[in-house]
Amino acid sequence: MCLIHGAGEGGGAGEGEGMMEPSLEPPTNFAMVEEGIYRSGFPRPVNFPFLRSLQLRSIVYLCTEPYPEENLSFLRLQNIRLFQFGIEGKTEPFVPIPRETITEALKVLIDVRNHPVLIHCKRGKHRTGSLVGCLRKLQGWCLSSVFEEYQLFAGAKSRVTDMRFIETFDVTQLRQCPYSVIYRYQGYSSNKRRLMYGEESVQKPQVASS
Amino acid sequence: MCLIHGAGEGGGAGEGEGMMEPSLEPPTNFAMVEEGIYRSGFPRPVNFPFLRSLQLRSIVYLCTEPYPEENLSFLRLQNIRLFQFGIEGKTEPFVPIPRETITEALKVLIDVRNHPVLIHCKRGKHRTGSLVGCLRKLQGWCLSSVFEEYQLFAGAKSRVTDMRFIETFDVTQLRQCPYSVIYRYQGYSSNKRRLMYGEESVQKPQVASS
Repeated sequence: MCLIHGAGEGGGAGEGEGMMEPSLEPPTNFAMVEEGIYRSGFPRPVNFPFLRSLQLRSIVYLCTEPYPEENLSFLRLQNIRLFQFGIEGKTEPFVPIPRETITEALKVLIDVRNHPVLIHCKRGKHRTGSLVGCLRKLQGWCLSSVFEEYQLFAGAKSRVTDMRFIETFDVTQLRQCPYSVIYRYQGYSSNKRRLMYGEESVQKPQVASS
Repeated sequence: MCLIHGAGEGGGAGEGEGMMEPSLEPPTNFAMVEEGIYRSGFPRPVNFPFLRSLQLRSIVYLCTEPYPEENLSFLRLQNIRLFQFGIEGKTEPFVPIPRETITEALKVLIDVRNHPVLIHCKRGKHRTGSLVGCLRKLQGWCLSSVFEEYQLFAGAKSRVTDMRFIETFDVTQLRQCPYSVIYRYQGYSSNKRRLMYGEESVQKPQVASS
């Protein structure tokens, strides 16, 4: 994400000048999870200029509904890859979050070739919060901090079922997966190098469309 | 921040194994603001292992109280530079946030030589939220998104006075400052290079201790 935009890229609101350019509007509940990983609610077209500034390589979309056509067009234009992992968002009837789906989504997240990546569902609270919670466990965060972050975004809508899911999700095996090993040896910050998709020789996780 | 920690660096809580190592505990209200910029409430010693994993270069501390000795020791050990910008946190009697102080703190934030940097006050809500809000304006975020983020962290403690401060804070001049210009031409993400302090030829902002 470009920290400081050029004068022509977006004047701050309420400044009294530079108002000719539209301000950047991140999707609702937007935040940076980690270097190269973002989270949010469902992006609307008004958020596209902001998303462009993130220079995304991929989107991890966690709903069962097909991706809207206008969002797909934006992805095609920006050459962003869509990974869809359909998870039910309803609480009635309650359908538990499928562990296998979260595992596959995590593999996409920790694969640096997909970075920068945006995770989103509808409101960026439950499905996104559960996935980020599991990622935090993988990072070694203690459970109370994982829950604090989950609750920050879910607010009054926090669900005990999501937190129980995060608590019981086992990250041991994921720590051994090639993506995780690669990430660990990649270095980070200024030393981070980016792997590009080449001959697709590494087996790819389940991908739906783009 | 290292995304995936080695097995010896922190086992996830609730996994049933790898419990020999302590889990990482970020400071309360911790979040990533931007590549190289973090925010939180006051870090306690229990948070030091986590802070170490961020490989911080600096801390921007926004309270008037002296920095605790145990935190200072940690900073010395880790070679982290402390920038203190004392801002009153009380509402009774109400003391307005000094604009000049926020401007100076912003100059430190956008100076990539200080990255990775952690901003914190006491609870990471008001002073930190106001500074981050001004940074978002500098980034060209629309005001409603800036407020949404402020309210996410301040919650029920949100203050209209802080939001009014952010709204009326003028970022025009800051856009022209050398730090901002350097940042804009630095590139970002994988292309980002890090400037190191050299002969200190550029005039530095006000610094208190470390």
